[in-house]
Amino acid sequence: MSTQAVNGSVSRGKVLTLDTMNPNVKKVEYAVRGAIVQRALQIEKELKEGVKKPFTEVIKANIGDAHAMGQKPITFLRQVLALCSYPALLEDNKFPEDAKQRARRILAACGGHSIGAYSASQGIECIRQDVSRYIEKRDGGIPSNPDNIYLSTGASDAIVTMLKLLVCGEGHDRTGVMISIPQYPLYSAALADLAAVQISYYLDEDKCWSLDVTELKRAVTAARQHCNPRVLCIINPGNPTGQVQSRQCIEDVIRFAKEEHLFVMADEVYQDNVYAEGCKFHSFKKVLFEMGPEYSSTVEMASFHSTSKCYMGECGFRGGYMEVINMDPEVKAQLTKLVSVRLCPPVTGQALLDLVVNPPQPDEPSYSMFMKERTEVLAALAEKARLTEKTFNTVPGIICNPVQGAMYTFPRITLPQKCIDTAKEEGLAPDMFYCMRLLEEEGICLVPGSGFGQREGTFHFRMTILPPTEKLKDVLQKIRDFHVRFTKQFS
Amino acid sequence: MSTQAVNGSVSRGKVLTLDTMNPNVKKVEYAVRGAIVQRALQIEKELKEGVKKPFTEVIKANIGDAHAMGQKPITFLRQVLALCSYPALLEDNKFPEDAKQRARRILAACGGHSIGAYSASQGIECIRQDVSRYIEKRDGGIPSNPDNIYLSTGASDAIVTMLKLLVCGEGHDRTGVMISIPQYPLYSAALADLAAVQISYYLDEDKCWSLDVTELKRAVTAARQHCNPRVLCIINPGNPTGQVQSRQCIEDVIRFAKEEHLFVMADEVYQDNVYAEGCKFHSFKKVLFEMGPEYSSTVEMASFHSTSKCYMGECGFRGGYMEVINMDPEVKAQLTKLVSVRLCPPVTGQALLDLVVNPPQPDEPSYSMFMKERTEVLAALAEKARLTEKTFNTVPGIICNPVQGAMYTFPRITLPQKCIDTAKEEGLAPDMFYCMRLLEEEGICLVPGSGFGQREGTFHFRMTILPPTEKLKDVLQKIRDFHVRFTKQFS
Repeated sequence: MSTQAVNGSVSRGKVLTLDTMNPNVKKVEYAVRGAIVQRALQIEKELKEGVKKPFTEVIKANIGDAHAMGQKPITFLRQVLALCSYPALLEDNKFPEDAKQRARRILAACGGHSIGAYSASQGIECIRQDVSRYIEKRDGGIPSNPDNIYLSTGASDAIVTMLKLLVCGEGHDRTGVMISIPQYPLYSAALADLAAVQISYYLDEDKCWSLDVTELKRAVTAARQHCNPRVLCIINPGNPTGQVQSRQCIEDVIRFAKEEHLFVMADEVYQDNVYAEGCKFHSFKKVLFEMGPEYSSTVEMASFHSTSKCYMGECGFRGGYMEVINMDPEVKAQLTKLVSVRLCPPVTGQALLDLVVNPPQPDEPSYSMFMKERTEVLAALAEKARLTEKTFNTVPGIICNPVQGAMYTFPRITLPQKCIDTAKEEGLAPDMFYCMRLLEEEGICLVPGSGFGQREGTFHFRMTILPPTEKLKDVLQKIRDFHVRFTKQFS
Repeated sequence: MSTQAVNGSVSRGKVLTLDTMNPNVKKVEYAVRGAIVQRALQIEKELKEGVKKPFTEVIKANIGDAHAMGQKPITFLRQVLALCSYPALLEDNKFPEDAKQRARRILAACGGHSIGAYSASQGIECIRQDVSRYIEKRDGGIPSNPDNIYLSTGASDAIVTMLKLLVCGEGHDRTGVMISIPQYPLYSAALADLAAVQISYYLDEDKCWSLDVTELKRAVTAARQHCNPRVLCIINPGNPTGQVQSRQCIEDVIRFAKEEHLFVMADEVYQDNVYAEGCKFHSFKKVLFEMGPEYSSTVEMASFHSTSKCYMGECGFRGGYMEVINMDPEVKAQLTKLVSVRLCPPVTGQALLDLVVNPPQPDEPSYSMFMKERTEVLAALAEKARLTEKTFNTVPGIICNPVQGAMYTFPRITLPQKCIDTAKEEGLAPDMFYCMRLLEEEGICLVPGSGFGQREGTFHFRMTILPPTEKLKDVLQKIRDFHVRFTKQFS
């Protein structure tokens, strides 16, 4: 610093500029809310201001946001949340007894019986117990310890926290983290922020985006030349690719992780979103324990779940949890300390999670309505999954794998060379160019495949299947028409 | 990695151990939820299990958690939250019309009219507008731009995000961040996590914990020898020290920040918590703008607020905001990108914040009850602030500054040499030893001064003034008796 600067009378630039900010943050990218979404918001404003467009509304199929797409909240969940927020309603006869009982139980576990009190940083104890019971039931009785459950601010929070714990070393010793390509960009963003090394392994599009251990092996072997691979991240059911892993594949992956001495992070937030016949959700934990003590007592793992997806789609509440397995107790103490700095996850999100893991039972008054609402949502999603695949596969130049699970389709699009050249001139990835055109011409907001990663020379987009069926049909029709028109235009 | 390891048949240690975890995380400390709180939770369990103790309950005066201490939620806030959670209640005549109007407005701004939808990452637009209007009113008309408002998951989230943006450089160029001693340990924890350099400046206990620019100057000059000081953090009203900064002092600090080319972070979460006569809250932004364009157009600043403190004390909702001033537009774009990775702050927390910045107006049906509840809380806090100071100052060996604002007292305690020696033998800070004894003997959980930082050779503890008046009297009496007994025992 110069004396001039210190005496303060000289005009200086800003303290914080692009050149003097955290360089890791600059490397962060998050396509799901990137440039195309900014433009979509702008167009929405323009429409409101009366600007004429070839469409009357923007359909934001860029993000898995069920309620924004018109899905109605599950009545029981919201009744209990209202009771927790305003306990005077506990005297109201309009609320069913089981909703009141759940609310009373949650409030009793809160400081001063208020959801406005901080909770324990790891989450409210009785909710962690309920999460454990839910996991045990899901996994056919394999034990779960509430001490291993950490409630979180959505799954994203827990995923970033686990990655943060795991990253260390410099240069060739820097922690490498294996993530699928295509991937959910939270992972690449967190790795950039932490300056960890991203190790990409490719899913096999020709085999319905399945994961092949040979490819994992290739990726880890190559990475050992320049970093220290320590973590393997898996998303199952897949985001953005919608595949559901077979039990055999999960077993192979776990065996690979053990051989390569990798910590497994299993992102299982879509565990209720399985649609394809013959597909079933198998939790990594269940498979691990079925492989016997040689695995179940050694392989370190964290599994993530969320209130934002499945049938409830309550993204705004930022509820979630992770279960850690075989974690070193000293590290667990460090984890508990680390989460305490942020005090606690939102208590309304914790309450919501409690209802998700402890829903109405057959002998309770809310059961039938709850089941009806839940089943309707999941049945509609299954129908939309099939509809989407079927429709896209009728379009020349679009190839679409079955949407076995999750909430997205990730079709491959053929782009003419002239499009690729024009995009290059404009400094855009070709699929970004394509998606931007689609947005401007049809008001449909998708995320280009380049935001998730894809094999060199291939192009895709991610679209949620969440719009209501009739609207989805309309969207699919519009994309089809656009694709044909676009292809002609650039041929 | 050895071949033995790769073939996988050999037993190996864990992937993630204390030795192989993120070393920065290991350095993080957060006393407010540290060892003493862990022990308090254990004692609570023991009491439940019937273990006999010299007390029947643990009083957790370690944290500013109003509802946990029995403070009742403000009716209006909770009515609107219940309406937002379960909109069927909008048909219910029991809810006042202004509560319904607020709920309708919030829901109209949510995706699909549901608080279960994600919001914009920066926060719901109409809520950011309300925040701006609130700031303008608070600051006597100085303009606030909603584009400069970022809603957050409590203030902690925004503070950590800002620090993250600001930290760069290596070695002697590493960003230095000035924080007060005593400090709120979120700051030291975040700096450890980010591997930033902590620059300590001391508050003047003899002058009611006031801040002296000479001390800032000393600290920054010394720090320039080994790092690049770029940030100045201020907590006003003070945590843990409860002082309220004078307008003159704020002006001096801003002038210092400009001269030294520092980004100012103003933690103003206790802005409604001012009790002492002659004290008034002055926002850093207001003072900045009153200093004229030479300052208001150059000094970069971020100010933080929260729903967790003041009269509402809604910690569990994790609501908050920051306003950024004079931030480089390119950096702001980076900030917006960074917060988008976590999708959005909890929408219930955003809704709550909206009510705090846009409370019932005099012509609205909820006004009188709202004002009554608000006034009662703040009046009780003011009374407890005086009671605490007065009582502590009657105890030989305790010196207590006035609690001018915030929610804490940070009295200085004289500890006998024998206590200091014994603590040393047990590997504890002397005030931790003292607080642990107090917890075991009286069931009162405080945080030792060493968790916040203090001048070498001085000892303190932080206690919230939040317990209900009668309980607080009891707590103060017990601490007095304990202190006398403890001092005798170790003399």
